[in-house]
Amino acid sequence: MAKDSYLVGLIGSGIGPSLSPALHEREAGRQGLRYLYRLIDIDVLGVQPEAVGDLVRAARDLGFDGLNITHPCKQLVIEHLDALAPQAEALGAVNTVVFETDGRAVGHNTDVTGFAASFARGLRDAPLERVVQLGAGGAGAAVAHATLTLGAERVTVVDALADRATDLAGALNRHFGTGRAVAAVPELLPELLAGADGLVHATPTGMAAHPGLPLPAELLRPELWVAEVVYRPLETELVRTARALGCAVLDGGGMAVFQAVDAFRLFTGREPDAARMLADIGELGERPAGQVV
Amino acid sequence: MAKDSYLVGLIGSGIGPSLSPALHEREAGRQGLRYLYRLIDIDVLGVQPEAVGDLVRAARDLGFDGLNITHPCKQLVIEHLDALAPQAEALGAVNTVVFETDGRAVGHNTDVTGFAASFARGLRDAPLERVVQLGAGGAGAAVAHATLTLGAERVTVVDALADRATDLAGALNRHFGTGRAVAAVPELLPELLAGADGLVHATPTGMAAHPGLPLPAELLRPELWVAEVVYRPLETELVRTARALGCAVLDGGGMAVFQAVDAFRLFTGREPDAARMLADIGELGERPAGQVV
Repeated sequence: MAKDSYLVGLIGSGIGPSLSPALHEREAGRQGLRYLYRLIDIDVLGVQPEAVGDLVRAARDLGFDGLNITHPCKQLVIEHLDALAPQAEALGAVNTVVFETDGRAVGHNTDVTGFAASFARGLRDAPLERVVQLGAGGAGAAVAHATLTLGAERVTVVDALADRATDLAGALNRHFGTGRAVAAVPELLPELLAGADGLVHATPTGMAAHPGLPLPAELLRPELWVAEVVYRPLETELVRTARALGCAVLDGGGMAVFQAVDAFRLFTGREPDAARMLADIGELGERPAGQVV
Repeated sequence: MAKDSYLVGLIGSGIGPSLSPALHEREAGRQGLRYLYRLIDIDVLGVQPEAVGDLVRAARDLGFDGLNITHPCKQLVIEHLDALAPQAEALGAVNTVVFETDGRAVGHNTDVTGFAASFARGLRDAPLERVVQLGAGGAGAAVAHATLTLGAERVTVVDALADRATDLAGALNRHFGTGRAVAAVPELLPELLAGADGLVHATPTGMAAHPGLPLPAELLRPELWVAEVVYRPLETELVRTARALGCAVLDGGGMAVFQAVDAFRLFTGREPDAARMLADIGELGERPAGQVV
């Protein structure tokens, strides 16, 4: 008998407003699956991020099929897993754990594959010779891996924390080859963007709690494509400003959906309908957090 | 928004063939609920029965709404709970744990309420002055509590392990009043049954792994009602023999269903349809274990 019942969850901090339960459960419902997606919030539980190992073992023991993992546990979880998929190993971060039928816990990173899928769909023919990326945190590391995997010749990583940018550029060069990534300080943005094909934005600016533009609007120009990571709201000030200027723009919804698409496929072995899930996130993302399923 | 998503499970040893997942999930499906019932088998996990406390805490942390608990954890779980319902406290055994919205874990015993409901339905006008009960184990303790709660004047507990019968009778007398229960050895069954209104059978004899009759057939007579606890198969040799003789007979399916009915109500706050669940167990119980969902 084919398995049609799935139990999954998300471990992280402050995840109450996550759209993942609704995204996964809606698609599963359309596929006729019995599918539960539970939020396991370390703040609500009052435990430290280091408890992620115990939580992962408990989830396996209690019959979970897999887990998504988010901030601040994406690195901490690695030592508790039995194996890593290549993109998770390269990045040193896991956002998806699959419990195989033999009991092994295998780590994947669908932030990387999700951004790549979204980019390939939404900015298919975008030039990739010179990419400037703003933000070298966890999301930044994932999307830089994705951009370089997609064939970007050089990614310049800009972060207000100079060390963080330098560390990420170093890691990218070790993995993709010397010269593929460089680090820079924000003061250089004007000249960097003047010579760039596109801008990837991977800081929290533009989220409801951090409104505003992550860089001066006058640095944008119509020839520059813009890829946004923030997806709540989908229409960030950066997205709105760039669209108004005539830039090719990728909003953050695609990455959010495709990381879920890839996780759903890993959990179930079934192919989700990405178009339906993109429609869902458009609808879900507009609701106040309190109304989200 | 009304809650329509439930995660529950069963903790115990050797529970692979349990019908509880199918019973709960079928009824939930008819009610339009998203409902998962997971088996958490301590043998499969390779942990001791004492691990039940850790498993209960983990289930609460990972978003379970409740748990059923079975052998050998029904007593061991008690020290890990925050409160007990009266019937669980009286019996000293818990088969259902509900995680309240405030995080408290409350123990119930729906074996007691389930047997009582089944008896009230299937043997409504049965006389209860003198009841003989065979078996003083965990199931025996639960059904003796139920029978006395239903108004039995006296229950005579018979067990091949004399101490076990004496201990149960003592506990029953402390709870229900002196003289409501007595213990006896199997050699006395002929004269006990000659003067009894009914027989409650609460040993494993009659299960597939323990075929046969739990007492000599010639001790049965048409005036004696017979209540069976074994439900796989529903048609035990005792049930078949007593029916052929013209006894009023209650098979074990009712207790199995009503303990699930009561647990479902505790988990969800919704009223299950007992008649539909009785039809389910008739169908599910006939299948080889390997085919059960």
